[in-house]
Amino acid sequence: LWGLPVLSSDAISSVAYATEEILLVLVPVLGMAAYTPMLGVAGVIIGLLFMLILCYRQVIDAYPQGGGAYSVARENLGRIPSLIAASGLIIGYMLTIAVSSCSGAAAIVSAIPQVEPLRVPLIVLFILLLTVGNLRGLRESSKAFGLPTYFFVASMLAMIAIGAVKAALGQVEPAEQAAQLSQTTGDLTLFLFLHAFSSGCSALTGVEAISNSVPNFSDPSRRNAKVTLVALGLIVLCIFGGSCALAMLYHAAPADNLTVIAQIAAGVFGSDSIGFYLIQTTTALILLLAANTAYNGLPQLMSLLAQDSFLPKRFADKGSRLVYSHGIVFASTFAIVLVVAFNGDTHLLIPLYAAGVFLSFTLAQGGMVIHWRRKRCRSWMRKALINGAGAAVTALVFAIIVSSNFLAGAWISLLAIGCAAWAMNAIFHHYQNVKKALGLNDNERAKRLLLAEAPKARIIIPAYAINKPFIKTLNYARGLSDNIEVYHVKVSAQATRRFKADYQKLEISIPLVIEKAPYRNVNEVLLDHIDEKLGELEKHETLTIVIPQLVTKIWQMPLHNQTTLMLESALVGRRNVAMVTIPYLIDS
Amino acid sequence: LWGLPVLSSDAISSVAYATEEILLVLVPVLGMAAYTPMLGVAGVIIGLLFMLILCYRQVIDAYPQGGGAYSVARENLGRIPSLIAASGLIIGYMLTIAVSSCSGAAAIVSAIPQVEPLRVPLIVLFILLLTVGNLRGLRESSKAFGLPTYFFVASMLAMIAIGAVKAALGQVEPAEQAAQLSQTTGDLTLFLFLHAFSSGCSALTGVEAISNSVPNFSDPSRRNAKVTLVALGLIVLCIFGGSCALAMLYHAAPADNLTVIAQIAAGVFGSDSIGFYLIQTTTALILLLAANTAYNGLPQLMSLLAQDSFLPKRFADKGSRLVYSHGIVFASTFAIVLVVAFNGDTHLLIPLYAAGVFLSFTLAQGGMVIHWRRKRCRSWMRKALINGAGAAVTALVFAIIVSSNFLAGAWISLLAIGCAAWAMNAIFHHYQNVKKALGLNDNERAKRLLLAEAPKARIIIPAYAINKPFIKTLNYARGLSDNIEVYHVKVSAQATRRFKADYQKLEISIPLVIEKAPYRNVNEVLLDHIDEKLGELEKHETLTIVIPQLVTKIWQMPLHNQTTLMLESALVGRRNVAMVTIPYLIDS
Ligand SMILES: [K+]
Ligand SMILES: [K+]
Ligand SMILES: [K+]
Ligand SMILES: [K+]
Ligand SMILES: [K+]
Ligand SMILES: [K+]
Repeated sequence: LWGLPVLSSDAISSVAYATEEILLVLVPVLGMAAYTPMLGVAGVIIGLLFMLILCYRQVIDAYPQGGGAYSVARENLGRIPSLIAASGLIIGYMLTIAVSSCSGAAAIVSAIPQVEPLRVPLIVLFILLLTVGNLRGLRESSKAFGLPTYFFVASMLAMIAIGAVKAALGQVEPAEQAAQLSQTTGDLTLFLFLHAFSSGCSALTGVEAISNSVPNFSDPSRRNAKVTLVALGLIVLCIFGGSCALAMLYHAAPADNLTVIAQIAAGVFGSDSIGFYLIQTTTALILLLAANTAYNGLPQLMSLLAQDSFLPKRFADKGSRLVYSHGIVFASTFAIVLVVAFNGDTHLLIPLYAAGVFLSFTLAQGGMVIHWRRKRCRSWMRKALINGAGAAVTALVFAIIVSSNFLAGAWISLLAIGCAAWAMNAIFHHYQNVKKALGLNDNERAKRLLLAEAPKARIIIPAYAINKPFIKTLNYARGLSDNIEVYHVKVSAQATRRFKADYQKLEISIPLVIEKAPYRNVNEVLLDHIDEKLGELEKHETLTIVIPQLVTKIWQMPLHNQTTLMLESALVGRRNVAMVTIPYLIDS
Repeated sequence: LWGLPVLSSDAISSVAYATEEILLVLVPVLGMAAYTPMLGVAGVIIGLLFMLILCYRQVIDAYPQGGGAYSVARENLGRIPSLIAASGLIIGYMLTIAVSSCSGAAAIVSAIPQVEPLRVPLIVLFILLLTVGNLRGLRESSKAFGLPTYFFVASMLAMIAIGAVKAALGQVEPAEQAAQLSQTTGDLTLFLFLHAFSSGCSALTGVEAISNSVPNFSDPSRRNAKVTLVALGLIVLCIFGGSCALAMLYHAAPADNLTVIAQIAAGVFGSDSIGFYLIQTTTALILLLAANTAYNGLPQLMSLLAQDSFLPKRFADKGSRLVYSHGIVFASTFAIVLVVAFNGDTHLLIPLYAAGVFLSFTLAQGGMVIHWRRKRCRSWMRKALINGAGAAVTALVFAIIVSSNFLAGAWISLLAIGCAAWAMNAIFHHYQNVKKALGLNDNERAKRLLLAEAPKARIIIPAYAINKPFIKTLNYARGLSDNIEVYHVKVSAQATRRFKADYQKLEISIPLVIEKAPYRNVNEVLLDHIDEKLGELEKHETLTIVIPQLVTKIWQMPLHNQTTLMLESALVGRRNVAMVTIPYLIDS
């Protein structure tokens, strides 16, 4: 039963902020009258949840290898829709990290208000810890990772049960905010309801995680995944529905530095009780776990995209710790930028969050309709109908989310998704063009390019002193070719006299060429000489520059190898010149 | 007469801020009573100026090749004092850039107050313009550079003459600030006098420039330099003394967004007259020219220091435009940091400025005493006495500057000088150690290291596709050695099958080694293979990795060459492995 707790943490943890986000829209307008429509909004969201579960059960059946919106869209809808789905997923993953860690920090601040001034640094620290953990291959101990979910669900259920009993016995004290609440009054409009609904849809982010990871379940994996998905639905039903009901009973309302969940916990257990701190702890832990799931999902998705030539190749492969280190660093960088730009405020990030997620839902469900129509398996019409309804509903929800949150931040998500999709498409075309430019379509052509007699290398060794690295370089060069020239730029008469004398004492037959740099323009003189030699090359010949590279401690590096670095940047762009660096380690 | 205007601009331009800095100390305490002690302070400073001129005439005689505090101290006082003198000069040069451009911006803001909100960006723009100009080798047109000095001196002298006549005729209107001035009263203490004096000493920064550049004068260069130095003294006497006298007559007092010079010009010519704008323009121009002199002096000093192994070698040499580009970029970077950190405020920078300059004065004069005692030339006692008196006086002034401005910023200069001197000494020791570690003291040893029979290179070519760059790489490698291995890491069965088939069709006898990376850990598998091969090397053998490097447009580079970049960073630190990159330019 490992699949349930880890893969569900993303979805279940959303309860920590979804109730609050609904109230944040309704309470400022409706005051005490906000709670009844809140229950309505929560009801619609739970209905939507079960519709999504129905749809994703079919995704599990169709893609037991683990679908994901990107794969489904790529297979059924083509390149551009799949890139849009992928961009939605990427933005969604980065927001999962940002929102979850911000919300986790809010839970901690609720328990220890003194931490408030350090909120943003604390969130950045969370993300850095997750980064380091994932870079070092944290997953090996992932069994223990299930615990936070169990703890959170158990403590929430206990709170809901005790809260309900207390309410039934009439032991409820109204929360502090209640007095102020009654003063605000306004009308419940359709727009307000839809706005509250779109904020509450953050509760549904993460339900797709299970269908993405079917192979992670034990056999029969398909069946287990589907059972888990239903279990997830029931858990969210209980704790999201329960916390909404308690929010109503205990008059919890959004406040600074005290989350709605914390207010409920304070009302049920007392504001300084063990129960209160327990709820805050388990909430923070499951949110951290939810953020961590994005560190598994995003780099894996980026690897898929890189293998399909939509991202730089380096994202495709794993590093020595068997993790996608580039993807992890990428995710963290953007999540930290988001957190800092939005000042670590969950409320400001939520309008960005659900848009990307529902866009990928829509594309996945739309892709499923095509999938069933193609397969035409038993009762395909019914299946296509279910996924089609899912696509229609999620598209509608996407439209609601975007229109009611456009200026509040959804435009940022849409812009980011558009840019990401455009960039990935441009990368794809670039790789295609390069592949075409480099390719050898017929084998005869390849064989023709292969020289019968490869020309001997011509070597230049730039040198300023006869020392151990020079001798090592010389030995190496003599193993490559006998067409070698030692090249020295003269800036100081004394140094050059010394160099010449030392060189002659070596008694070797390799010619020494000395040129003056009258204005200390050493690099220019060297490059001019290389260019002159390049002009003398015959067809298919290459000029090889062999140069020692001193290896010192990292902070001493800027003191050395200036010629090597200069040549590396200057010779890029010149054809037919190869550069060899011979490492020389200083023992110290 | 090129030497006078350009080399003197640093010293002459100081008039633009020195009068104001004296008043800035005195007026807040003494009010209207500030002007009499100001004249006293100015008198002492002019006396000090002529003492410095007397001393530096002797430096010109002794070091006709252009001394500079660093060279004088290095020859006579030893390494550590010379490094302290050099650090003082470096800090002084950077402050010359920062103070002059801030003061130039103040002159512009005085003329056009609307520019005030853009002051810091404007200063940064000045510095960037100077940077680009100097990087492109601005000096070629340096004859025209004398003009701003002539214009400034002429316009200042005209203002002083007209202002004196007007005052004699009783046509002086009191400046706006006069009313407020009379309200503040306080006592003239010794500390206040010394503080005002130390601020006014900024007038003396730059007098050393002429003695540093004797060879730039036409023959007889020594005599011309000495004449110029005296001319400089007379000019500063006239315009510094004159502007102090006018400040008294016209009741000019430091104010925001209107410099003291601008107030005098407004009093003499009228606040919207051509004369007023002319003074502001010539002031801004000479200050820009003064900042530019530091761009000649500092990189030249850094080149000397780098040639003496106190700075990274790259500072020693000139780039293709025959300028010390590293030194120029270094100077600009630090000057911009200073300007931004001190919000572009001349007043805040002045306390940092004079300390470094007077420290290098003291060390130069002290070094001259030793110089004369060593030489024992005709009348050496008298010469040593003059320089000794100069050393004593400048040391005293240094002590006054530091003690009266310590908390206001002199501590920053002292700390920076200390750190710079320490760093240069550390760099020197590092270079000495490396030289010793790499050196071959006797020639027999060098010959012994030289192998009679250099071993043939062993080559590995990592490859993922049979394409044009691969064929080019293969051709090149075959010219180097016949001990070649093509190495392929398998991640996708399909891609590897294709690679193998294409390779076999080439019909070459070079062995192909394929290894699996079951977890997509491509780089790790490749590095492991290299390490394995390194273990098989015999003594003196080197393993050579030959790899193509795709050359694309600069922004496409991150999409390619991931193996090259990875190997470059991973192989540093491994002995006996050389890396060859074969450039392949994509035509597009
Ligand atoms: K979530
Ligand atoms: K969720
Ligand atoms: K997610
Ligand atoms: K100056
Ligand atoms: K000066
Ligand atoms: K200076």
